[in-house]
Amino acid sequence: MAKYCFGVDLGGTTVKLGFFSNDGKILDKWEIPTRKENDGGYILSDISVSIKQKMVDAGIDPKDVAGVGIGVPGPVTADGIVKQCVNLGWGEFNVEDAFTALVGLPVKAANDANVAALGEQWQGGGKGYQDLVMVTLGTGVGGGLIQEGKIVSGSQGAAGEIGHMNVVSKEDTIGVCGCGNSGCLEQVASATGIVKLAVRELQENKMDSVLRNLETVTAKDVLDAAKADDALAENVIDTMASYLGTSLALISAVVNPEIIVIGGGVSKAGIYLINVIQKYFLEKAFHVDRTTKFALATLGNDAGIVGAAKMILDITK
Amino acid sequence: MAKYCFGVDLGGTTVKLGFFSNDGKILDKWEIPTRKENDGGYILSDISVSIKQKMVDAGIDPKDVAGVGIGVPGPVTADGIVKQCVNLGWGEFNVEDAFTALVGLPVKAANDANVAALGEQWQGGGKGYQDLVMVTLGTGVGGGLIQEGKIVSGSQGAAGEIGHMNVVSKEDTIGVCGCGNSGCLEQVASATGIVKLAVRELQENKMDSVLRNLETVTAKDVLDAAKADDALAENVIDTMASYLGTSLALISAVVNPEIIVIGGGVSKAGIYLINVIQKYFLEKAFHVDRTTKFALATLGNDAGIVGAAKMILDITK
Repeated sequence: MAKYCFGVDLGGTTVKLGFFSNDGKILDKWEIPTRKENDGGYILSDISVSIKQKMVDAGIDPKDVAGVGIGVPGPVTADGIVKQCVNLGWGEFNVEDAFTALVGLPVKAANDANVAALGEQWQGGGKGYQDLVMVTLGTGVGGGLIQEGKIVSGSQGAAGEIGHMNVVSKEDTIGVCGCGNSGCLEQVASATGIVKLAVRELQENKMDSVLRNLETVTAKDVLDAAKADDALAENVIDTMASYLGTSLALISAVVNPEIIVIGGGVSKAGIYLINVIQKYFLEKAFHVDRTTKFALATLGNDAGIVGAAKMILDITK
Repeated sequence: MAKYCFGVDLGGTTVKLGFFSNDGKILDKWEIPTRKENDGGYILSDISVSIKQKMVDAGIDPKDVAGVGIGVPGPVTADGIVKQCVNLGWGEFNVEDAFTALVGLPVKAANDANVAALGEQWQGGGKGYQDLVMVTLGTGVGGGLIQEGKIVSGSQGAAGEIGHMNVVSKEDTIGVCGCGNSGCLEQVASATGIVKLAVRELQENKMDSVLRNLETVTAKDVLDAAKADDALAENVIDTMASYLGTSLALISAVVNPEIIVIGGGVSKAGIYLINVIQKYFLEKAFHVDRTTKFALATLGNDAGIVGAAKMILDITK
């Protein structure tokens, strides 16, 4: 059995790389920039060179390396075909075949949100559970599904796109989602969405609020104010949490997870946020799903490289 | 390799049994009553006796039989544990172990709606597709998920409970769902739901309608009237289809199927119904999911035994 593997989290500005022992310990981690010139044509070569250099520096025989797992910021099918990664400049191709040819090691690729979900399931907030839904509340809302310990990719690699569940009423929808639709969960449950809801509330509502003293409002400001019982901020978080809790109840009726793990910058609001979300979840959940656990993600920025390592270990062991 | 297998579809009043060649041909099929006395304690013995008798009658050596697949009307976990089957009188137990002990053959069990989905994926409306959602519109609304050709069970065997997605507005919700919630998809998209919506529309709306000439209204009456351009009936089907189309768009954002197969009595309305559902689906679907295909189920009452046969062939081949 191989002693090591690599986990790669390919992002729009940096590539995170991790060198792992086969029991999942991070032995080393580093970053390189994501070069997007020439339709992202250098990206896989850059990663490959960096991994080969690491093996030389560490005195590791490639025979002792199981392979490389890689999370990609776009849809990836179960057989490794990237459909499109707009923010890398990539079109459709088999990223596993291309990267294997460069790096000379087995490669397994999947969508980055799904890979992060696998990381949290293996070593993070979902440790010990086989059926998991992960929600990442950041600039957007991402999601990943794990069933029986494996990533659910979907037919076009677009499973877990829960930020684009169209659940928001016309009254609560501000503008158009990045995907072109109106009414996506992401429009109210992301950091950006929280800020938009708060700005509108401040304009349309005469209520007093600590948020009025701020020059610009961030999602953290709104969450901090809500925690401190600021009524206007509480309204905003209530709106956000009712849509998110309802959506998680709908997701649970479809895939019946054991645990829902919440990550991303917004999740730093912690147990306060989970409690509000769970209140709405319980109102709408099918009775079997009411026992679904909620947890915070714990791996932060390492979730991607950890999940990527797990992915390659799973198929090579 | 074994030459034969059995597929069993265990229902609340009858058990359907099928004897299959290992390439999926139905060589024989028959039914026995479901004896629910003594908390359903005779059911597995009855099925076992019936299968053994069939092997004797057909002169088949049990060594040539791969095993028995069985669909059960309740949640079944991926490792064969029935959580509860209220309408059989069953509590929690490992139905695979219990049935193997009786019948002396390998047994694989799953929820009946999931098994029917697998049947349609193998030989029915979803043939040729690996990632499928099946919706059964009958007295209730059932669902089944297939990913990469395999049933998605969920942590408690309750994946695919799409009839209990809580999506219906207060105004369109009539009464309480069998599950105890209000606002379940099943309350508007089942045959029962269509009738309730029509009866309310007939009471509250002065519009002329052919449905007013009927002593009792069935779902088929409403669908036939809508097809014949009866405006009141069209309103009812429009309401039903908007919730169902929206729900299928939400499901697609979560699991990204290649095809959605629609079965059950209500689906006899055929392509007319699919067209109305798809109209609302396309309005709400994430752009990647807009290419999702729609098809009618084709196996009718055989979907359960066919899917059950596939299930046992998959794990024994």
